[in-house]
Amino acid sequence: MSAKNAFYAQSGGVTSVINASACGVIQAARKHPDKIGNVYAGRNGIIGALTEELIDTSQESDAAIAALKHTPSGGFGSCRFKLKSLEDNKREYERLIEVFKAHDIGYFFYNGGGDSADTCYKVSQLSEKMGFPVQAIHVPKTVDNDLPITDNCPGFGSVAKYIAVSSLEASFDVRSMAATSTKIFVIEVMGRHAGWIAAAGGLIEDYGIPVVVLFPEVEFDKEKFLAKVDAKVKEFGYCTIVVSEGCHWPDGKFLAEQGTRDAFGHAQLGGAAPVVANMIKDALGHKFHWAVADYLQRAARHLASASDVDQAYALGEAAVEKAVDGKNSIMPTIVRESSKPYKWSIGEAPLSEVANVEKMMPMEFITEDGFGITDACKEYLYPLIQGEAYPPYDENGMPEYVTLKLAAVEKKLPAFEI
Amino acid sequence: MSAKNAFYAQSGGVTSVINASACGVIQAARKHPDKIGNVYAGRNGIIGALTEELIDTSQESDAAIAALKHTPSGGFGSCRFKLKSLEDNKREYERLIEVFKAHDIGYFFYNGGGDSADTCYKVSQLSEKMGFPVQAIHVPKTVDNDLPITDNCPGFGSVAKYIAVSSLEASFDVRSMAATSTKIFVIEVMGRHAGWIAAAGGLIEDYGIPVVVLFPEVEFDKEKFLAKVDAKVKEFGYCTIVVSEGCHWPDGKFLAEQGTRDAFGHAQLGGAAPVVANMIKDALGHKFHWAVADYLQRAARHLASASDVDQAYALGEAAVEKAVDGKNSIMPTIVRESSKPYKWSIGEAPLSEVANVEKMMPMEFITEDGFGITDACKEYLYPLIQGEAYPPYDENGMPEYVTLKLAAVEKKLPAFEI
Repeated sequence: MSAKNAFYAQSGGVTSVINASACGVIQAARKHPDKIGNVYAGRNGIIGALTEELIDTSQESDAAIAALKHTPSGGFGSCRFKLKSLEDNKREYERLIEVFKAHDIGYFFYNGGGDSADTCYKVSQLSEKMGFPVQAIHVPKTVDNDLPITDNCPGFGSVAKYIAVSSLEASFDVRSMAATSTKIFVIEVMGRHAGWIAAAGGLIEDYGIPVVVLFPEVEFDKEKFLAKVDAKVKEFGYCTIVVSEGCHWPDGKFLAEQGTRDAFGHAQLGGAAPVVANMIKDALGHKFHWAVADYLQRAARHLASASDVDQAYALGEAAVEKAVDGKNSIMPTIVRESSKPYKWSIGEAPLSEVANVEKMMPMEFITEDGFGITDACKEYLYPLIQGEAYPPYDENGMPEYVTLKLAAVEKKLPAFEI
Repeated sequence: MSAKNAFYAQSGGVTSVINASACGVIQAARKHPDKIGNVYAGRNGIIGALTEELIDTSQESDAAIAALKHTPSGGFGSCRFKLKSLEDNKREYERLIEVFKAHDIGYFFYNGGGDSADTCYKVSQLSEKMGFPVQAIHVPKTVDNDLPITDNCPGFGSVAKYIAVSSLEASFDVRSMAATSTKIFVIEVMGRHAGWIAAAGGLIEDYGIPVVVLFPEVEFDKEKFLAKVDAKVKEFGYCTIVVSEGCHWPDGKFLAEQGTRDAFGHAQLGGAAPVVANMIKDALGHKFHWAVADYLQRAARHLASASDVDQAYALGEAAVEKAVDGKNSIMPTIVRESSKPYKWSIGEAPLSEVANVEKMMPMEFITEDGFGITDACKEYLYPLIQGEAYPPYDENGMPEYVTLKLAAVEKKLPAFEI
C-alpha cells in the first residue's frame, strides 16, 4: 500500500493546548513517510475541508511545528460548524469524502469535542460505504471535560490550573485589604452546562481561602447562598466566590439574565459575576470586586498544566500511531492508573461509544451543601493541574507563540456552497 | 548609638510584588543588627501603627521572609487609609510618633503610592519637631505607575506583563475562530486616571494583532472608535480592544456608567468592557467576547515580570541601606540607564519633591489618532516586562505562596480611636 495523505482539523472553541495535539499529530506523521504522505490541515476547521481550503503543513518548518506545542489557540483556525445528521445533510458528508478522494486522503484526524467525535464516526462509516475508506480518528479536546470514557479531556487541566491559581492570587489580594476595604471577590468562569471549571476554583479551600462555588449542577438558592457567604465573612473577614456562567435559578434562567437593561433598553450587558457581587452588597453591605475571566482562561498558555500539555501531545501522537497500526473509528483516551502519584496511560475508545454521550460531573464531587467540592473531587483534579509547562519568552518579555504560514493546497474540485 | 527598631507598613491597593519589597526591607535589616533591632510591621498598614497593632517580624522564619519575594498581595495587610493634613488631624500624626516612641522605633519604611509618600514626609518632619526624630523612607509601590522622579513604580511592570500576555493569548484565540464566530474581544484593565496599564495592551500590535486601545487620557469618540474597529475587522477579520476602566465620554462620564439598571433598578452592574462590546455589536453586528481582569491583573504573581520583582526587592533593600547610612525623608528610585539593553540603577528623591506630585503618561506615548501607543511608549514599556520570575509550585500544581504567622507585639499604650 502506498502512502496516503492525512487530513487534520481543529473543531469548536480552541484551548491553550489544542495546538499541542496538532504538534503531536504532525510530528508523528512525519515519522511515517511510508504510510502517511502529507498532512493537510483544514483552514478554519472542517469548513476548510468542505470548501477545499486545505493547508499544506509540509510548508511549515520543523521549528514552527514544534512551537505549536507551546502556542495557544487553533493554529490552523477552528469553527463551530456542526454537520447535520447524515439523513438531513448527506451532501456535506459526501463532499467531505470527495475532497478526501481528490487529495488522496486516507486518514482523518479530527480534534474536538462531542460534536466532532460524532462527525468523525459518520465519516468513517460513510467513506466505507462510498468505496473510499478513510481511517477516522478523533483526538479529544474540550475545556468542558465532558467526553465519555477518557478520564479527562485536553484543554481542561490548563483552564483548571489557571482558575485555581488566579482565584488563589486574587483571594490573597482581598485578604490583605479586607479589614478596611473589599471583602468579597467574585470570579466568573466558563462552563455553561458543567461545573468542572468552577470546581477547580474550589481547590483554594485547601490553601486556607474561604470560598463558595456556584455550580450549574446546583439550582441557585439565594437565601442559602447569602447565609453561606455571611458565615464565611464572619469567620474569615472576607470570602471568594467562584461562579460558573451556567449557574441558574430553579426555573432555569441564568443568573446573568437578571433583566439588566442599558440606556437603550438592551438586555444583559453583564455576566453572572456582577449579579452575584451586587446581590451580596445589597444583602450584606460588603464592598466587592469582580472579574470575568472569559477567553483569558482558555487561552492562558502562559500557565498551562504540564500534565495537560503532555496529554494533549500524547493523544495527537497516539492518534497517528493507531492509524498507522490500522485502527479506525476510535478515539485515543487518557486512562488514569493512579492519582497519587499521578500515573496515566493512553487507551482507546470506539467512536460508536463516544459520539453523542456527554459525561457530567459526578454529584459526589459536590459537597452536600452544594457550595464546595469533596475530597474525591480534589483527588481527581490535582493531578490534572500538576506541573508547569512554560512557553519560551523573547527579549521583550513576551511569549514566543508561533503564527504559521498556512500555505494553501491547490484546489482540484468545483466550489461548494455550505 | 544603640540599635533602634524599624516600622514597616504596606499601603493602598496591593500588588504582586509589594511583598518582594517587604522581603528586601526585612532581609536587609537583618544584616544590620548593630543599627536596626527588630522590624515591626503594621497589621493592615498604617492603621496597625495607629492602633498599636504591630507584628513582630522576628517571629517569621528566614524561609518565610524569603518566600515573600514570590508571594503576591500584602503579607502584613494593607489599607486605603489616608492621614488627613497635619492641620486637620495632628492627633493621628502625634499618635504615630507616640507609638514609634513606645516601641523604640527609629526607622519608618512606608511602602505605597503618592499618599503614603506624603504621610512619610510629614512623619519625618513632625517627629523631629516632637523631639523623637524618625528616619522616614518611602518605598515606592503602585500599579498606577504615577510616582514622580522614579522611572517606574514596582507593581506596574508585572501588571503590564500580565495584560500584554493575556491580551495576546486571547487575541490568538479570537483569530482562530474569527472566520465564522467571535470577531471582537474586549479586555477591561485597571487605571482610572492614567492609561499606563492600557498602554501595555497596545504592545500586542508588535505581535501582529489588530488592537485598539481606549485610554482615560483621550476623550471617547464613539464614531471615530467604531470606524477604527470597522477598519481593523475589514483588514484582519477580527479586532482586540483594550479598554481602561477610566475611559470616559467628553463630559467626564465613565463608559461603564451607561445607565445600566437591573430588574430592581440598581445602577451599573457591569464594567466598561460589556458597554464597548455591545456598542460594536449594535453598530457593526460582530459577535463578541469580553473579559474584566480586575484583581486578577494586579495579583498575578504567576506571571510577574522579573524586572519588576528585582526592582521591588532592590528598592526595599535600598531603603534600609540608605536609612542605615543616615538618610531621611527620601524615596529610593529607579533610574533608567538605557533601554536597549535595559540597564537600571537605584537613585533617590527627596520626599518633599515626591509628595503630592502625580506623574501622568506623556501624551507622546499615545498615537495621534488616540487609539494606540507610539514607539517611544514601547521602548519605555518593554524593559519593564522583561524576564520571568516564576514562583515555586507544590506537588499539587499550586504556587507556594506564604501565609505569615503575624505574631502580635505586646501593646504598651492606651487604646486609640481612629
